Parts: sequence; C-alpha cells; structure tokens
Amino acid sequence: MKVGIIGVGTVGASVANILRDNKDIITARAGCEIEPAIGVVNNLNKKRDVTIELTDDLEKVLNDDSIDVIVELMGGIERPYEIIKKALANGKAVVTANKALLAYHRYELQDLAGDTPFEYEASVAGGIPIINALRDGLTANNILSIRGIMNGTCNYMLTKMINEGIDYDTILKEAQELGYAEADPTFDVGGFDAAHKLLILGSIAYGIDVKPEDILIEGIQNISSEDIDFAKEFNYSIKLLTIAKKVDNEIELRVHPSLIPNHEMISKVDGVMNGVSVIGDKVGETMYYGAGAGGDATASAVIANIIDIARRGKGAPMLGFETPHGKNLKLMPKENIRTKYYLRLRVEDKAGVLAKIATILGSKNISIEKMIQKPLNRTCAHILLSTHTSTEKDVIEALKTIEEAGVVTGKTAMIRIED
Amino acid sequence: MKVGIIGVGTVGASVANILRDNKDIITARAGCEIEPAIGVVNNLNKKRDVTIELTDDLEKVLNDDSIDVIVELMGGIERPYEIIKKALANGKAVVTANKALLAYHRYELQDLAGDTPFEYEASVAGGIPIINALRDGLTANNILSIRGIMNGTCNYMLTKMINEGIDYDTILKEAQELGYAEADPTFDVGGFDAAHKLLILGSIAYGIDVKPEDILIEGIQNISSEDIDFAKEFNYSIKLLTIAKKVDNEIELRVHPSLIPNHEMISKVDGVMNGVSVIGDKVGETMYYGAGAGGDATASAVIANIIDIARRGKGAPMLGFETPHGKNLKLMPKENIRTKYYLRLRVEDKAGVLAKIATILGSKNISIEKMIQKPLNRTCAHILLSTHTSTEKDVIEALKTIEEAGVVTGKTAMIRIED
Ligand SMILES: NC(=O)c1ccc[n+]([C@@H]2O[C@H](COP(=O)([O-])OP(=O)(O)OC[C@H]3O[C@@H](n4cnc5c(N)ncnc54)[C@H](OP(=O)(O)O)[C@@H]3O)[C@@H](O)[C@H]2O)c1
Ligand SMILES: NC(=O)c1ccc[n+]([C@@H]2O[C@H](COP(=O)([O-])OP(=O)(O)OC[C@H]3O[C@@H](n4cnc5c(N)ncnc54)[C@H](OP(=O)(O)O)[C@@H]3O)[C@@H](O)[C@H]2O)c1
Repeated sequence: MKVGIIGVGTVGASVANILRDNKDIITARAGCEIEPAIGVVNNLNKKRDVTIELTDDLEKVLNDDSIDVIVELMGGIERPYEIIKKALANGKAVVTANKALLAYHRYELQDLAGDTPFEYEASVAGGIPIINALRDGLTANNILSIRGIMNGTCNYMLTKMINEGIDYDTILKEAQELGYAEADPTFDVGGFDAAHKLLILGSIAYGIDVKPEDILIEGIQNISSEDIDFAKEFNYSIKLLTIAKKVDNEIELRVHPSLIPNHEMISKVDGVMNGVSVIGDKVGETMYYGAGAGGDATASAVIANIIDIARRGKGAPMLGFETPHGKNLKLMPKENIRTKYYLRLRVEDKAGVLAKIATILGSKNISIEKMIQKPLNRTCAHILLSTHTSTEKDVIEALKTIEEAGVVTGKTAMIRIED
Repeated sequence: MKVGIIGVGTVGASVANILRDNKDIITARAGCEIEPAIGVVNNLNKKRDVTIELTDDLEKVLNDDSIDVIVELMGGIERPYEIIKKALANGKAVVTANKALLAYHRYELQDLAGDTPFEYEASVAGGIPIINALRDGLTANNILSIRGIMNGTCNYMLTKMINEGIDYDTILKEAQELGYAEADPTFDVGGFDAAHKLLILGSIAYGIDVKPEDILIEGIQNISSEDIDFAKEFNYSIKLLTIAKKVDNEIELRVHPSLIPNHEMISKVDGVMNGVSVIGDKVGETMYYGAGAGGDATASAVIANIIDIARRGKGAPMLGFETPHGKNLKLMPKENIRTKYYLRLRVEDKAGVLAKIATILGSKNISIEKMIQKPLNRTCAHILLSTHTSTEKDVIEALKTIEEAGVVTGKTAMIRIED
C-alpha cells in the first residue's frame, strides 16, 4: 500500500520515519507493506530529518494512481478541505490529524467520503486512541458525558500554577520557551483548539452537527493566584475541561476552566498529558490517558489509521497479527527477571546481624537502596529494605543463604518494586 | 443479525437486556438490528431477570441457521472450547468473555476461526476497550511494556489494606460478603485470573504463545501490615500487577504484588477498578481505566464486539453512526447550562456587604455551599465562594446585579465546578 504525505512537518516527518523504522511490526500487523512513497512540502530547500522522497508538486501526487492513501498533515481549513475533496474524488483513502478542518467540515467530508475510508484518530488527544474507544469500544452505551483534558499547553500551565505557585504570565513565557506554547498562544489558552476536538467527540457520541461559534468557549487567561489558593484549600484541581453531556434531549458542549475534586481520576492528569473520561450508561466511567501532541505520539495514531485501512474488509486479525510474529521471541526464564526488590526480614535484635545480611546480599551483587530497622519486641526486629535492580535468581539465592545462615528468625517476605 | 447467548448468568443476562434497552443507539451504530434471539441455560427453572427466550437445548441453537453470532458466556475451558468449535464449523461468528478458555486455547481458536470473526474484548479488563486499543490503536508501535491492574478483587482488598489499615483476613471476609470475592478466592487472590488476562495481552503485543503454567504467578496472600507500612513510608502503593515487557528478544510475563511509586498514573487505580498502562516506542505511555467486571460493564464490551461483527467488511462509519442519529437532539443554549460555580468577588471590607451579596444570589435561587473571606488590604477583602447547582443565566444575572449595586470594587471571577 502506497502512502502520499501532504505536509512533512512535525507530524508528517514522524509518520514517514516511523513507517520506515517500525516497518517489521507494521507489516506483520497490517498484512501488507505500507510504503511512505512521497511527501509534499511547500519549501523543498528546507532541511528535514527524513529519508522519504519529497516534492512540491501536490497535483502530481493527488493524480498518481499508484498512491492508495493520502495523509493530510499540512494544517489549515479551506486549503486541506479542497485537497482532500480531490483525493476522495480520485478514489484515495484519506487520513488526517487536522481538528480545525473537522470542526468545520466533518459532515460534508463524511458525505463526500461515502464508502471510501476517511480516518482522523490523531485529530483528538494525539496518541490516545480515544476515537477508536468511543466509535468502536463503547458502542453499546448511551454516552452520558465526556470530560476531556485535551490541550497540553493549558494543562502544562495550570499544573505549574497549582503545583509550583507560578503566575500565569511567567508560566506562559516558560511554555513558549519550551515550545509548548506558540508565539501567539490564543488558539491554545483561549480554548479554541480544545473546542475543535470537543466538536469531533460530540459528533461521535451524539451525532450532533455544531460549529465552534455555537458553543461556550472560555480560556484560562483569567485564572489568578487567589483562585488557585481556593482550589487547593478545598481539594480541587483546575483544568481546562471540554465537556459534552446529554441532558434529556439537549446536548451541552462547552470548554472552560473547571474546578474538579482531587479524588476524581481525571484530576490527576497533569503537565502536557491529555486525558479523557467517558461515562456510558452501561459501562460506567472509563478513562483514557496519554500524550496529546508531539510528532511521534501523533504519528502513532495516524499510522494506526493507515493500518486500519489496509485491514478494511477483513477487520483486525484475532490475535493482532496478520502474518506470524514473535517466532524469534521467547519467554524470559523466571530466574533472569531483573527488577528492584523489597525485603522484610525478621531478625534477632543484636549486633552483627545487619552486617551479615549486607555481606550475603553483596556477595550476590545485590546493593541496598533504602533500609529501616523496626524493633518488634525485646529480642526481635524487622529489617525492611529495598534493593537496586537485581536478578531474581540472585535474590532467591541470597534469601536462601540468609535463611541457612540462621540470621533470620521467621519467614522472609519479598515484594518486587516496579518503577 | 441474530445472536444466540450460551449462558444467561451475570454477563449473559446483561447482554440480552442491553441489546433490548439500548436497541436504538445500537441499531444506529451497527447499521442493522441486533436481536438477542435465544439464550441457553443449564436450569430452565431458575428465576432470571430477562425477557429473552430461553432453552436448555444447546445443539438446537448451534445448528439453527438463522443464528449469525454465538456469544459464549458460560465459563469453563474444555466445554466452551468444544461448543465454540461447533459454532465456528457451522459458520457462526463467535464472541466470548472467557479468559480461561483463551489462556489455554487462543491460538487453536485463531486457526479454527480463519476468516470467521472471533472476538473477545470482555475477556480482559471487562468494560475497558483495551484489546481494541492494543490491537487497533497502538499498531504503529513496538510495545515496550504493559502493566495492568486487572483483578478487581485484589485491588479492592489492597486498596482497603493501604488506605484503611485493615488486615488481609478481615478484608477478604468483607470482600466475600460484598460479592467481590468468591467463597474459594484462590483464583483471584492467587493471581491466576490476572495471569489469564496477561497471556491474552502478551499475545496481542508480542505474538507469543505461552500457557499459565509457564509464567511467574504470585498472589497477594502474604502481604502483611509491615509491608503496607513500608510502602506508605516510602510513597509506594501496592498493586497486583500483570507485567509484559520486552527485553531484547525475551519477553517477561509475570503476575505478582508490586510496589509502585505513588506519582505513577497506574498507582492511582483504586478499589475494584482496573487500569492498564501500555508503553509504546513511539506513543510513549497510554493508560486505560474503568470497570473490570460486573454484568453491564462486561456486556458493554461483548456488545461492542457484536457491533464490530455487524460492521465487518465496511469498518466503522466515519462519524460513528451508520444511520442518522441525533436528529432529535439539539445543542443546549449556553444560558441553560446547570453546574456549580466558584465566584471570587473583591469587596469593601465593611459590614453589610456580605448580606447584600447573599441576598442578590438568593433572589436568583443561587445557594452558597462554601465561603471564605480574605482581607486584601486595610479597606478591601476577597469573598471566595462556591454555589450549589445553579443555572448559567441566573449566575450571570446575579453577577451583573452585584456589579450594578456597587458592592464590588473590582472585576468578579467565575469558574465552573464539575463534580
Ligand atoms: N504537532 C502536533 O503535535 C499535532 C498534534 C495533533 C494534531 N496535529 C495536526 O497535524 C497537522 C500538522 O501539524 P504539524 O505540527 O506537523 O505542522 P507543521 O510542522 O507546521 O508542518 C506542516 C507541513 O505542511 C507543509 N505545508 C503547509 N502548507 C502546504 C501547502 N500548501 N502545500 C504543501 N505543503 C504544505 C509544510 O511545508 P514546509 O515544511 O515546506 O513549510 C510543512 O511540512 C495540523 O493539522 C495539526 O493541527 C499536530
Ligand atoms: N461476571 C463478570 O464480571 C465477568 C467479567 C469478565 C468476564 N467474565 C467471564 O464471562 C463468563 C460468564 O461469567 P458470568 O459471571 O456471567 O457467569 P455465571 O453468572 O456463572 O453464568 C454462567 C451461565 O452459563 C450457564 N451454563 C453453564 N454451563 C452451561 C452448560 N453446560 N450449558 C448451558 N448453559 C450453561 C449457566 O446456566 P444456569 O444459570 O442455568 O446455571 C449460567 O446462566 C465467564 O467466562 C467469566 O470468566 C465475567
């Protein structure tokens, strides 16, 4: 299957490179090779970190019969709309990450596409497969509500404001320096980017056709340190939330800063990460969390769509692979597992015991990270310790040696530490 | 499309009832009616809360040419294996929630199914569409690791132990009384149920064929209060984790209690809830959270699979609906939105101001939930308050009246509260 990539910027370059670098697993999952045949750019002279062939002749790519899928990653609204129309007219499947385009033209595009595949997973919450979840995973449900944290810029800023007490202007400048916010940040901090994504989810959940102009959109520009203090005092976090909710026959669609109780799972989505909580009438709450932006994370969703298109007609293979995979992978023997360990040893509370234990652990290359000793009664104590990364075999042998050496007076407990 | 349900117990009854109760949205999403035609049970005399026709004649259902999909929800291993073989031989699509069956026979079943749809979303983490995510949403990635909290019984018990200091035996008894644990709890607390689910995810991520006997499985039975204390002291939570991880050409598959740092998203999955964190080489970490068991939540996943089967050949419709939906839904006007509000008012610090504000709010039916007053300087103060659920229109009018009445000395801030 041949793919033409219109726009080889942040996301487009990642799409081309991942199709190259992860070719083996992608081929095994798709059941055919997916070739990034050509990329279209504005400026052929710009230096780019890609190996894909480039052109600035868009029409040639749109009219090339050997291209099966057009991936639109140029941004904008009316220009990509015209381009995608042509691609569909030429019978090409389309994949896009363009939420602005979909916020305005999703229903026209659905009509134009008809039976031709048109996919857009990356347009909402970047790498998180939330469209997949809503459109395929939760289809048995009437959706009661969706609450999303879908703008990384806002979430980064609000998290810093609440966790570190930094004020709005300072953190905006920092976000701009780190590349998390644009020179003109209005599109993000004003809630418009999040609103575009909300409208897409609103359509999938409720079938409702609404434009950004129609809904309540408020940005985070007026959040002050007093508000942050109030939130902290009453155990709330502040998030720019996108909300879609069904109340009788009316649908609420709104984007605004919100106070959320700290015990809710979605309140724990911090920094540049995105999260979407969906409540279905049968499944209850499910939540989806991950990177909402960035070249590779967004490209992950774009490529998932391309693979979907390759699988059209037969669906996903039962166990995930169209052609055998994993033949050269084998199960790691239990004793070779490497992780950190927590150990609890019951010992006599007397001199020399600790030294003996440390010596035995050391002889097996197990180094201690933290340790506390707690008296149990007049003669006994517990030694609780965590190790640096060690091998299962060494830990089991060390514990056996410790037991045989008679330094412990009860059964030793071991819990693995995963960090 | 006609569905035969083998086993009308907790999950089977929910499948039959949801197909009836949510028929409208399911039809719009699937593009055809999905009829729960018949249910097969052991004991026809048992009282059940279903309206579906019942039989105890399994063979008749398997041989009924009008049945398109067989849904296996009886449990067990060899018996459902034989039944599903027959269903596939008769050309029927199959959906199951049976993780034990798949832990042992998933590759044979894949071979037997061939091009006939065989789906099993509900077998792992109940209502969370994790198989969907891994098999369709993250396909561009080499999976680096999967860490799952996939047994609600264990997670309920461990959460209570760590949050409330209850000991293992007491909490096990409570879980049994609440119906979260079986009379013989070994299958859950011993880690075997979680291991079955892990093997399924291990296959989708790595294509590796392994049986439960081959992997490291340790239960939560030996967690003591000293371990809980250590975890708390060093900012860990304790979870029964299922881990699949790729290290060079070896795959780690293991189930055991684990200490996880409290800052990790997955450590926040508490109580009976399930959560699965997946790290892909391109997308980074994504996390999936929701109900891992219960009739309706599990049935949500079973029915999603049935709808998938109805859509075979054409894939999911672009915006989620095969036939128009949402025609009778309309956008709620902004002013009718109802939620709670936080207000920050800058006032003169003198008697009577608070009374005036409370009176104006009261005249608009806005009642105050919490309030604090903070002096700003010698003459001014901030009143910070939250309201009970109110209407956007009333709040905006009240704020206007307050401003016009001259009780505030600066711009009033308003943030909506979502709980
Ligand atoms: N970046 C993210 O994290 C992210 C996340 C989710 C969704 N998205 C969406 O993905 C899309 C692309 O974003 P991006 O960040 O990758 O943008 P970008 O870095 O600005 O790249 C845009 C690319 O499109 C090319 N281009 C623009 N106009 C063109 C035209 N008329 N003809 C041919 N090529 C043209 C540019 O060419 P030159 O390089 O020659 O200028 C550039 O290669 C946008 O719709 C965005 O909303 C991005
Ligand atoms: N419950 C959950 O939350 C959950 C979550 C995820 C996955 N699952 C899986 O879903 C499956 C069903 O679980 P469940 O909790 O619904 O079980 P259940 O309540 O015990 O129901 C089992 C049903 O199967 C019927 N049955 C058993 N053997 C039969 C036979 N030989 N012929 C005909 N009917 C037979 C029973 O009939 P009678 O009613 O006449 O006895 C009963 O209706 C299991 O594989 C389980 O692992 C369950």
